[in-house]
Amino acid sequence: MPQTVKAKIGVLGASGYTGAELVRLLLRHPGVEIALLTADRRAGQEMRDVFPQFSPFVLPKLVSIESLDWSASTLDLIFCALPHGTTQKVIKDVLAKARSIKVVDLSADFRLADLDAYARWYGHAHQAPELQQEAVYGLVEVYRDRIKGARLVANPGCYTSCAQLALIPLFKVEAIDVGEVVIDAKSGMTGAGRAAKEEMLFSEVSEGIHAYGVGHHRHMAELDQEFSLAAGRDVVVSFTPHLVPMNRGILSTIYVRGVGENRPEDLHAILLKHYANEPFVHVLPFGTMPQTRHVRGSNLTFIGVTRDRIAGRAIIGAALDNLVKGASGQAVQNMNLMLGFPEAMGLEQVALFP
Amino acid sequence: MPQTVKAKIGVLGASGYTGAELVRLLLRHPGVEIALLTADRRAGQEMRDVFPQFSPFVLPKLVSIESLDWSASTLDLIFCALPHGTTQKVIKDVLAKARSIKVVDLSADFRLADLDAYARWYGHAHQAPELQQEAVYGLVEVYRDRIKGARLVANPGCYTSCAQLALIPLFKVEAIDVGEVVIDAKSGMTGAGRAAKEEMLFSEVSEGIHAYGVGHHRHMAELDQEFSLAAGRDVVVSFTPHLVPMNRGILSTIYVRGVGENRPEDLHAILLKHYANEPFVHVLPFGTMPQTRHVRGSNLTFIGVTRDRIAGRAIIGAALDNLVKGASGQAVQNMNLMLGFPEAMGLEQVALFP
Amino acid sequence: MPQTVKAKIGVLGASGYTGAELVRLLLRHPGVEIALLTADRRAGQEMRDVFPQFSPFVLPKLVSIESLDWSASTLDLIFCALPHGTTQKVIKDVLAKARSIKVVDLSADFRLADLDAYARWYGHAHQAPELQQEAVYGLVEVYRDRIKGARLVANPGCYTSCAQLALIPLFKVEAIDVGEVVIDAKSGMTGAGRAAKEEMLFSEVSEGIHAYGVGHHRHMAELDQEFSLAAGRDVVVSFTPHLVPMNRGILSTIYVRGVGENRPEDLHAILLKHYANEPFVHVLPFGTMPQTRHVRGSNLTFIGVTRDRIAGRAIIGAALDNLVKGASGQAVQNMNLMLGFPEAMGLEQVALFP
Amino acid sequence: MPQTVKAKIGVLGASGYTGAELVRLLLRHPGVEIALLTADRRAGQEMRDVFPQFSPFVLPKLVSIESLDWSASTLDLIFCALPHGTTQKVIKDVLAKARSIKVVDLSADFRLADLDAYARWYGHAHQAPELQQEAVYGLVEVYRDRIKGARLVANPGCYTSCAQLALIPLFKVEAIDVGEVVIDAKSGMTGAGRAAKEEMLFSEVSEGIHAYGVGHHRHMAELDQEFSLAAGRDVVVSFTPHLVPMNRGILSTIYVRGVGENRPEDLHAILLKHYANEPFVHVLPFGTMPQTRHVRGSNLTFIGVTRDRIAGRAIIGAALDNLVKGASGQAVQNMNLMLGFPEAMGLEQVALFP
Repeated sequence: MPQTVKAKIGVLGASGYTGAELVRLLLRHPGVEIALLTADRRAGQEMRDVFPQFSPFVLPKLVSIESLDWSASTLDLIFCALPHGTTQKVIKDVLAKARSIKVVDLSADFRLADLDAYARWYGHAHQAPELQQEAVYGLVEVYRDRIKGARLVANPGCYTSCAQLALIPLFKVEAIDVGEVVIDAKSGMTGAGRAAKEEMLFSEVSEGIHAYGVGHHRHMAELDQEFSLAAGRDVVVSFTPHLVPMNRGILSTIYVRGVGENRPEDLHAILLKHYANEPFVHVLPFGTMPQTRHVRGSNLTFIGVTRDRIAGRAIIGAALDNLVKGASGQAVQNMNLMLGFPEAMGLEQVALFP
Repeated sequence: MPQTVKAKIGVLGASGYTGAELVRLLLRHPGVEIALLTADRRAGQEMRDVFPQFSPFVLPKLVSIESLDWSASTLDLIFCALPHGTTQKVIKDVLAKARSIKVVDLSADFRLADLDAYARWYGHAHQAPELQQEAVYGLVEVYRDRIKGARLVANPGCYTSCAQLALIPLFKVEAIDVGEVVIDAKSGMTGAGRAAKEEMLFSEVSEGIHAYGVGHHRHMAELDQEFSLAAGRDVVVSFTPHLVPMNRGILSTIYVRGVGENRPEDLHAILLKHYANEPFVHVLPFGTMPQTRHVRGSNLTFIGVTRDRIAGRAIIGAALDNLVKGASGQAVQNMNLMLGFPEAMGLEQVALFP
Repeated sequence: MPQTVKAKIGVLGASGYTGAELVRLLLRHPGVEIALLTADRRAGQEMRDVFPQFSPFVLPKLVSIESLDWSASTLDLIFCALPHGTTQKVIKDVLAKARSIKVVDLSADFRLADLDAYARWYGHAHQAPELQQEAVYGLVEVYRDRIKGARLVANPGCYTSCAQLALIPLFKVEAIDVGEVVIDAKSGMTGAGRAAKEEMLFSEVSEGIHAYGVGHHRHMAELDQEFSLAAGRDVVVSFTPHLVPMNRGILSTIYVRGVGENRPEDLHAILLKHYANEPFVHVLPFGTMPQTRHVRGSNLTFIGVTRDRIAGRAIIGAALDNLVKGASGQAVQNMNLMLGFPEAMGLEQVALFP
Repeated sequence: MPQTVKAKIGVLGASGYTGAELVRLLLRHPGVEIALLTADRRAGQEMRDVFPQFSPFVLPKLVSIESLDWSASTLDLIFCALPHGTTQKVIKDVLAKARSIKVVDLSADFRLADLDAYARWYGHAHQAPELQQEAVYGLVEVYRDRIKGARLVANPGCYTSCAQLALIPLFKVEAIDVGEVVIDAKSGMTGAGRAAKEEMLFSEVSEGIHAYGVGHHRHMAELDQEFSLAAGRDVVVSFTPHLVPMNRGILSTIYVRGVGENRPEDLHAILLKHYANEPFVHVLPFGTMPQTRHVRGSNLTFIGVTRDRIAGRAIIGAALDNLVKGASGQAVQNMNLMLGFPEAMGLEQVALFP
């Protein structure tokens, strides 16, 4: 029996939404055991005090990171779901003391390979530049092979995962005009996290929609990096995120112009072929556009392509659940590769609709 | 390997919400194979045309019931998710032609054992009275043993499942005053089904709450029957359902008075003990009340008991997902018993919150 | 022209929801001028920085209360929309320095006439007991005459306004059993205010419903006081509030038993007659129940009465907008009486549905 | 007293959302009297049976259009809120029999001046081509003078009003590249009307977002016409509408490139100057983007301009309430001009937020 000894997993930052989503997935993953849960402000409490949906389950008590002795750790892998900025110090410390532990980081700290770009977008020098170089960018559909051997994986952002899955195959074969890409993105509220802020209160965000971070959202740095790598040249796109009164989901509506002979149907064909064998990316028939609700709770991304009425232009839609394929599901997919499990293990939930 | 030959399952009425929820659960159930899906108005279409969340999955094409030859059927069990009234004729026909097929009916047609009560509440004589007598009421936590041997199980209503799980253990030990029970129930919109009605449009039901069916909701007949059986005497409760702008969930807020020595704490202790070994009923600590969102997508029912400030009175809360424990999850739980699978097989999803 | 000189009005606590709602109403009230807006943490900002819906309007800049010299004030009336507890000190100070100013207080500080009850429910002695005795409870439909001459009016709570309007006429004529009243109340999220708390985040409260404050909500003290006064004897009711994923609205579903000859139809007739000439309370036809959405944004309360199937019992529904009739609209109605304006002036908005 | 004799107004199609919104506004308009309400399928019922928010108000009973004798009509103006297609026949008949009646039509029937374009987009020849030529396009901010003298005004579409108010001043002065305009529009559910359709049910549209009509939405014809007129040359834009789980509101996020010397700040300055004296269009400070919730229930449009990080490109946001400025409020604004009332009369409601 292969699961006689289960992999021991820790979740740092279990009191946030991505932390809870990791616990939801890991609880039913046949190859792992949740051995550690941290939450500094809630240390000493049970997970059910923080997230009552876990009331019936036996889980480790929440502890603070400071209370841990990493040099004695027997964990195989930790997920790091801590705020941007503090993450790099924590992971540097962990890996200094427990060199064989593997890490999937869900923050933005290790996503940018260029330390200057990091400093420019985040306003301070990186605290762990050597780890930054070691880190592998964790979009499985692009970097599957490198992830298998990685010690530290930087899980991509939710907006960027959605846009990359739709565009990278097109950039790679130079099928679209890199100078004329507009990404209008819409996210559910869990993307903004669980910190108590006035602008995230129910009454502030229900019954309305608005754009935010217009012209300067940090996810742009990640898009620039990965799009430019895929296209083999500098790519800068227009990207505007919006908040939608729903819990989960990102929809990217992407306006592109085909280059050369590439009509919208050809862009669709490129994507369809590219993802033919991917377990978690599904390309809809030409002319059908995705809805976020149809991937809710699943690790799937749905992609659709439609002809614009302007000759040569196409409209691409991509939808995923920001907490699953956009965060914790992607992270478990990375874990599966890093620990040698089948890639889809524990991630086969069918979407919850309605 | 026990699952070499999987049980063959049919879903009649797959284009409604309970039908889709059955497909969601059965797709990942290790012991079964979905062999038949019917939907009269959508016959000839694929399930993905009706519910796009199933786009990546291979499923049988939708067919009409009329097109089927039941005498040649190799199905082991069918779920019947058809409208009230038509169900009894369909099942009568199926069981006349395919006597060994097992049936879990999600409609109200076979829930009332008393044919007079049926006629009174539904306005017409029952069309299959002999099957009515054979049918077993499918609330597993009450009728587990009878369900194991049943051919036809009447899956309980969503409102009634919620209220029964909270009250039946108390009625059984005569712990509460049967003359003073008020059940104020709140349901998500999927409880009203998928038929296109003006009063179910988004703009009619969002941003508001209202009661409906006040004084005469048909679920009352089912409550009367089961509560009276549990109490060993006639019980008639006040029951008022409300519609809440959310997709899933039923919350029953129940006002009771303890009799004899039974303080609220004692009522809690009775429930805690009664459900100690049940996989799908979880009693929260005394004074903690349940929220529907914490059971969303799972087969769990959460129950809480709190002391009212009026001496002797308690307030009981019960929450479940109306499409899972209140319908399709319960139905799969019944199937598991009827086909000899472990009771919880395929039903262990952790709730999706947020 | 009577409005040559408009009354000068101040709003203390303009950065909360009831403050903004006061501004919405007062901006279009033909008899008043908004002369002062305070918001301690936002002092120095414009109202449009705090509530962008006011961008096109000219309004006084927000100031802190500490910066004001009340002895030089020319205000005719202030609304006090400050947190419970701090209010009593502020009003005591204002009225000591500006004795002719009139005050409508939207907090709970002056609602309880019994100082012992206040201390018991709020955990500390009242800081302005002499003003407590002077304050008039501001439910216009009950205390209209006293309010006209009052200097300090305690605007009722939102839950209590809703329940009182439905029950007080019945208590007054001893039409219902005072020992068997259950009030199951459901509120929109604005009732919880604008303070940034984790449990009020969109993702915590959308797609679900739950009870809170079960057995010990502070609005009970107010209900006890007013119900007992109306009934002429001690009345203690069961009251359970719930939070519903909607912005505005309170629905009270009330379970009562008629006494003497009073059938449900008689309870309806009592209410219909009682409110025949009230501008802001509308009794629906017997058997019709109210929906919160149909009073949204208006100062109206809708009341309905339906027969329960248990002989002698009735179910009463009452719906209002917690920010209008449950708070700021009620407050303006009080202001109109206190300043000699027509009672409905500035309050005739038709409900915004859908 | 100027309002001794009020204008007599009819609403054809009062049982839909735009009809109800007209009634909401007209009930409080000091210059008019609602003299006629039609609703064919609800003829004989009261408005309160169709929209309970009007329960307290006295309104004409609903009648069918067929039952009316237009030659004897004393109405001054009718609003026509009927479905596209049937409208042209009804209005043709009305104006043949009652030549002096004025008409504001809220359907799309008279918006396109080019009969060929009409036939192409709607699939049939226009039934009243001579009226089509007479009709004035009713976007007040563009055609104010012509509207004042019009007998038949074609009220603009909701999506098109929002996009036109943001872009027409820029097209007029040739400030943006007409070949590179992308309009990503998001609408609340009331924009889809009150017809009972499965895809508009609460459970189908809550908790998700999706694009629809991609590449071929009929509002494009209206955009083409008005943008080309404004720019003085053929303009074809990319336009993609989305449905958002909210009742009211349209947000247009518009991606443009300035031409010549026009930086984003210049585009903002053009809009700010253009709308300086408009009562219902408000331009936010440069860099501030609008939210639909801040105009809810009001006749206002908020417009914002932000710099994109791509040199020369700007992102423009425009928000309005689709039922007010996008339909019924706009229609009343047209009526005010046509009947000689002050333009803002009855339209000064402050937005309802939260």
